[in-house]
Amino acid sequence: MAPAPKKSLSEFSLFKSLVFPFALLLAAGHASADEGQWQPHQLPQLKSELKRVGISIPAEKFADLSKHPMSAMVSLGGCSASFVSDSGLIVTNHHCAYSAVQRNSSPEHNYISAGFLAKTRAAELPAGPSSLVYVTDSLENVTTQVLKGITPAMSGRARHEHVENRIKSLIAECEQDPAYRCSVPSFHRGLEYYRIRQMMIRDVRLVYAPSDKIGNFGGDVDNYEWPRHTGDFAFLRAYVGKDGRPADPSADNVPYKSKDFLVVSAQGLKNGDAILLAGYPGRTSRYKLASEIRYARDTSFPARVTELQADLAVIAAATKGDANAEVRYASVVKGLHNNLKKTQGLLAGFARKDIAIIKDGQDAAFRDWLKQQPKSDASAATLLSELDSVIASDMALSEQEFAWAVASNSDLLKSARSLYRLAQERSKPDAEREAGYQQRDVPFIKARLSRLEQSLVASVDQARYAAALQRYQTLPAASRPLGLDTLLPAKLDTLYQHSQLADTAQRLAWLEKDQATFQQSDDAFIRLAVQLQDTAISLENRRKEVDGNLERVIPQYMQALIAWKKSQGKPVYPDANSTLRVSYGNVAPYTPRDGITKGPFTTVQGIVEKHTGQAPFNAPANLLTAIAQQRYGVFKDAVLGSVPVNFLSSADTTGGNSGSAVLNKNGELIGLNFDSTYESITKDWYFDTQITRAIHLDIRYMLWVMQEVDHADNLLQEMTLKYPGAKLKK
Amino acid sequence: MAPAPKKSLSEFSLFKSLVFPFALLLAAGHASADEGQWQPHQLPQLKSELKRVGISIPAEKFADLSKHPMSAMVSLGGCSASFVSDSGLIVTNHHCAYSAVQRNSSPEHNYISAGFLAKTRAAELPAGPSSLVYVTDSLENVTTQVLKGITPAMSGRARHEHVENRIKSLIAECEQDPAYRCSVPSFHRGLEYYRIRQMMIRDVRLVYAPSDKIGNFGGDVDNYEWPRHTGDFAFLRAYVGKDGRPADPSADNVPYKSKDFLVVSAQGLKNGDAILLAGYPGRTSRYKLASEIRYARDTSFPARVTELQADLAVIAAATKGDANAEVRYASVVKGLHNNLKKTQGLLAGFARKDIAIIKDGQDAAFRDWLKQQPKSDASAATLLSELDSVIASDMALSEQEFAWAVASNSDLLKSARSLYRLAQERSKPDAEREAGYQQRDVPFIKARLSRLEQSLVASVDQARYAAALQRYQTLPAASRPLGLDTLLPAKLDTLYQHSQLADTAQRLAWLEKDQATFQQSDDAFIRLAVQLQDTAISLENRRKEVDGNLERVIPQYMQALIAWKKSQGKPVYPDANSTLRVSYGNVAPYTPRDGITKGPFTTVQGIVEKHTGQAPFNAPANLLTAIAQQRYGVFKDAVLGSVPVNFLSSADTTGGNSGSAVLNKNGELIGLNFDSTYESITKDWYFDTQITRAIHLDIRYMLWVMQEVDHADNLLQEMTLKYPGAKLKK
Repeated sequence: MAPAPKKSLSEFSLFKSLVFPFALLLAAGHASADEGQWQPHQLPQLKSELKRVGISIPAEKFADLSKHPMSAMVSLGGCSASFVSDSGLIVTNHHCAYSAVQRNSSPEHNYISAGFLAKTRAAELPAGPSSLVYVTDSLENVTTQVLKGITPAMSGRARHEHVENRIKSLIAECEQDPAYRCSVPSFHRGLEYYRIRQMMIRDVRLVYAPSDKIGNFGGDVDNYEWPRHTGDFAFLRAYVGKDGRPADPSADNVPYKSKDFLVVSAQGLKNGDAILLAGYPGRTSRYKLASEIRYARDTSFPARVTELQADLAVIAAATKGDANAEVRYASVVKGLHNNLKKTQGLLAGFARKDIAIIKDGQDAAFRDWLKQQPKSDASAATLLSELDSVIASDMALSEQEFAWAVASNSDLLKSARSLYRLAQERSKPDAEREAGYQQRDVPFIKARLSRLEQSLVASVDQARYAAALQRYQTLPAASRPLGLDTLLPAKLDTLYQHSQLADTAQRLAWLEKDQATFQQSDDAFIRLAVQLQDTAISLENRRKEVDGNLERVIPQYMQALIAWKKSQGKPVYPDANSTLRVSYGNVAPYTPRDGITKGPFTTVQGIVEKHTGQAPFNAPANLLTAIAQQRYGVFKDAVLGSVPVNFLSSADTTGGNSGSAVLNKNGELIGLNFDSTYESITKDWYFDTQITRAIHLDIRYMLWVMQEVDHADNLLQEMTLKYPGAKLKK
Repeated sequence: MAPAPKKSLSEFSLFKSLVFPFALLLAAGHASADEGQWQPHQLPQLKSELKRVGISIPAEKFADLSKHPMSAMVSLGGCSASFVSDSGLIVTNHHCAYSAVQRNSSPEHNYISAGFLAKTRAAELPAGPSSLVYVTDSLENVTTQVLKGITPAMSGRARHEHVENRIKSLIAECEQDPAYRCSVPSFHRGLEYYRIRQMMIRDVRLVYAPSDKIGNFGGDVDNYEWPRHTGDFAFLRAYVGKDGRPADPSADNVPYKSKDFLVVSAQGLKNGDAILLAGYPGRTSRYKLASEIRYARDTSFPARVTELQADLAVIAAATKGDANAEVRYASVVKGLHNNLKKTQGLLAGFARKDIAIIKDGQDAAFRDWLKQQPKSDASAATLLSELDSVIASDMALSEQEFAWAVASNSDLLKSARSLYRLAQERSKPDAEREAGYQQRDVPFIKARLSRLEQSLVASVDQARYAAALQRYQTLPAASRPLGLDTLLPAKLDTLYQHSQLADTAQRLAWLEKDQATFQQSDDAFIRLAVQLQDTAISLENRRKEVDGNLERVIPQYMQALIAWKKSQGKPVYPDANSTLRVSYGNVAPYTPRDGITKGPFTTVQGIVEKHTGQAPFNAPANLLTAIAQQRYGVFKDAVLGSVPVNFLSSADTTGGNSGSAVLNKNGELIGLNFDSTYESITKDWYFDTQITRAIHLDIRYMLWVMQEVDHADNLLQEMTLKYPGAKLKK
């Protein structure tokens, strides 16, 4: 691990004890917790853990991102995936390739319900401008560069902006080669910064997706549920220019030469077997304090649930009976539902186990200890009070940000604000522009404004906005941003009648206009965005102040935790931040309640049990026939007597891990991660080893569907397969 | 086994093949089915099966009803129980002792919610006239005597009445000693008859029942469900006169000397362990034909569900807001709900597995075979056509009996009819009276008419009757008994105003009156009963005709089945008929659906999980404290790390098995049977070895509650206990 920023010895010994409560927390579960989303370079420190779990592949192999197997792990920007041939063939989840399937579907060729299989490379279809493949190329600890020049006297905002500026210049330097996309995420809430360089492949094609009757079997009903029977897999292919470098989509491009790719093993696995999982988990909150947990549990999450339920009800009413509107809002609704179920799951988890109380107890123990440390009294008291104060200001600001979000619940308003902000920022030199509004961000902003066409109906947007403004009026006065009330529109009919932003061409045209044109416009939404701008910037600046303070105080806390764990020979993993991580665990059932055991496997028999003929439980006839005829071939599991479909493991995952490769002890692909159980949702805040389980696709089900149902022989040929009891196919 | 009635050799060979389909059916499940409710004398034939399961106790021991352990197994008339000390101490289910607890409870001493424990024998409370203990004394095959004198020319009714008369005289002969109650149940639908003599102990006292917060934890919500956490146990004691013979309840009586009683083992058991179960299962229908299954599935059961739901709705509406009426109908509602859930469970099971189709296939195979048997063509065709015809007439009559029952849905009407029928029968010599209306039956009729007081409110009865008569009017004309429509009352107000039958003293007074008094009475319900009598008798006579025919044809079928199984070395058990039976099996979880496993154990942790503080999930504070403090003592299971509460086994049970002793391989009491899982309900018609599981109380939970919660030290002292790792306590 890279050296941490220097700290005085007295600070170290103070925090060694300060984090003692965390130790209790971390030790509370099983002795053999599989908690941890590890940075690849940390794996050599976990040798004994990997051995305990049963991993044979040397830990050092994971530390080198340029070599197999890590070099085969890619990001799709929100999803994870992996190369499974030397010609850029990528396997990921069906739901991660869904937009690619959708954009190529038409009433004549409904690839969503019929599935799609390119029998030749020429038949592969463009996955669309939002489909990007990121191949992590290198990573370097830039903490020293990022924190250089920071002084204790800096305000939170000044500190935050200083860090942002250092990051922007580190990114700009890295992106001089346009083949790469760079980022400088913070680890441990600002303790460390790594610069990550990823090759960004922008010609991605759809190769194969089964029918959504397989790929999305169970749909939203089964989302976060077990038993699960979802064939959540699809294949894409990365294309590059003839020079081997990323290029704009073109018929002249050639498949990317993925020298490192995963061997696919049909040899299967059984209860208790070791597994490894590599991918790009999005965000966790494992190191939150008791006060933050309590705020989420008692205030922000319940408010979010109410808000999401209200918004969903409005959309349902506004789209009811209008087939076009229903289709356009289908994915919006799906996203809101997912967010709702996840938030409810977190609340259910908080109700099941009072994590705040656990942390309270630890805090009390800490304060007891503190009294007995005469020398550190002053600095400890200062830090504790700073912690409390910064977190209190974070919560207070979050209240206003929530109110602001409620009052902004219109896609047209959000578009107008994004466009105006871009125009403002474009008036500055690129290096001085706000992160997210630099030139490198414009293609993403454009794609977002363009994609809105598929999920917008002005009348539905108006209904959502009107209802949201009513809900905003019921929020406590203290939580409403100062002055915002008077700026909000009174007559929405007028607003929508006097705006052209719902028209995609009109919307995109604003990308080219300057600040003055916005300020003189009579488009009602553009005018509203201009009016709201000061309030928005004010909130943003307050956020920078709070974040800057958090980034100053929290890392001291985290550093002490790491030092303490290190003294026990235990490394500490950072919260997830969409960077490449490795988890490990075992195939394992769990006990959701006394007297019931779930998993670890489901089989194709369960598809027959669930099949009703009505979506989302409408299995294709040829799949049902193959099951009825027991055409299981080599994919039959000896213990289960059938073809496994999904399985559970104890590995640590979160959103963003969708599509992650699940490897056996030898590093061969034996599954794809795609979900977690409902009881596991709390893991984003607290990893309970007894009930946390990730849901994976068993690769044998994928191979069986490819062979017996969809006859994807060309892809089976292209991959390197290891069959039961056999050597490599090639 | 006793010799079967003689049959010609040709009939034998015919039926050997006719029953071939049954063989397929019986073999369809696991190779190691635990199906079978065996007559004790059959157990020596099952030696290899018992050995396979893991039973050490010699099979011969079960054949002798006069010796341990069978002599310790008693019937409570609808429930099963067993002796657990040499002083008549009996353990059974809480729900089997419920009426004894209820009748001793008052607002001052609410033993239902507080529980009851007699610390001395003097403190034991009368369990009431309905609490009877039957100790099976002897059993003898009386088939020859029963069937003697039957001629082929007899009509169905004549044959049935002949059999009834033979049975009555066999019973009368047996009951010359008034200490005994005798019965002559038929086995295999008339193939065999056994005369069973039971000592009937009529001074029974309540010794100990835990709070219903333990004994009925989960209540109706958990009925037929798993996971289960019900402490369904209670203790009674049998008292006899000083001469050791049954006597009317009296303070002078002494505890019955139960020389044989069960040793209670706290040594526990684990997944897979062998268990034996002995008790008095009520009724099964395992040998029904495809047409009977189809009739139940498509006609009679759906009609029953509709009828029960309608009646429950009427009771709910009629009792709503009237606390007295709600209390009086609570047990009626509970019974109707139980019947409803059981019927729905049967229908769910029929929907899950099409047993009729399975039997159809077998029937077709049989008919194919039949064509190839030139010699038996004629007799086989005759039998098949007779079977079809008798069963068709049974189903047609059942339709009318159902309509009759709907039109009789008034407790006052049923009381009046029962009274009038008794008066009619009493005019004959006792031996010629209809079974059920002989002098020996009068105490039971009187108890029933007396007990009605606790569950009758005239206005509710009127509402039920009015609604039922309306439903009757919607039944198809063909299913209504001839002439009944015109006899039914038009104005119910008048009917209820002009009857004194709701008054218990008035109702009981009619027990003494003669036929003429009934015929001249102006009590409206008595007059209605008199008017309906011809129709009732006509239906009864038609039932006798059908039953007589069934009793003639079905036994031929069953005899062939037995012969065929015997040729394979496999005995056949008869359908349950409330006689003493033995089942065996293993502690076993089950898979209700792909990816989920239920059981085999629950623990006290599950009580904490379910506890809401609201009935039926309202565990007592002292129980929760004992769990929180982990005061598990010797009752902690090493594998589970807690005290087990309930467990599942694969043994074959049905209603009537409530309270049955569950024994370990050494014949020691380790559990009490009290329920089955919902998926198991179909077992009354079809035993599916993969999903059928009985739910038992783990005796360790009972002992733990006695020791740690209720401090029933006197009873723990009285029983012979075997503690973990220890020899007998005494």
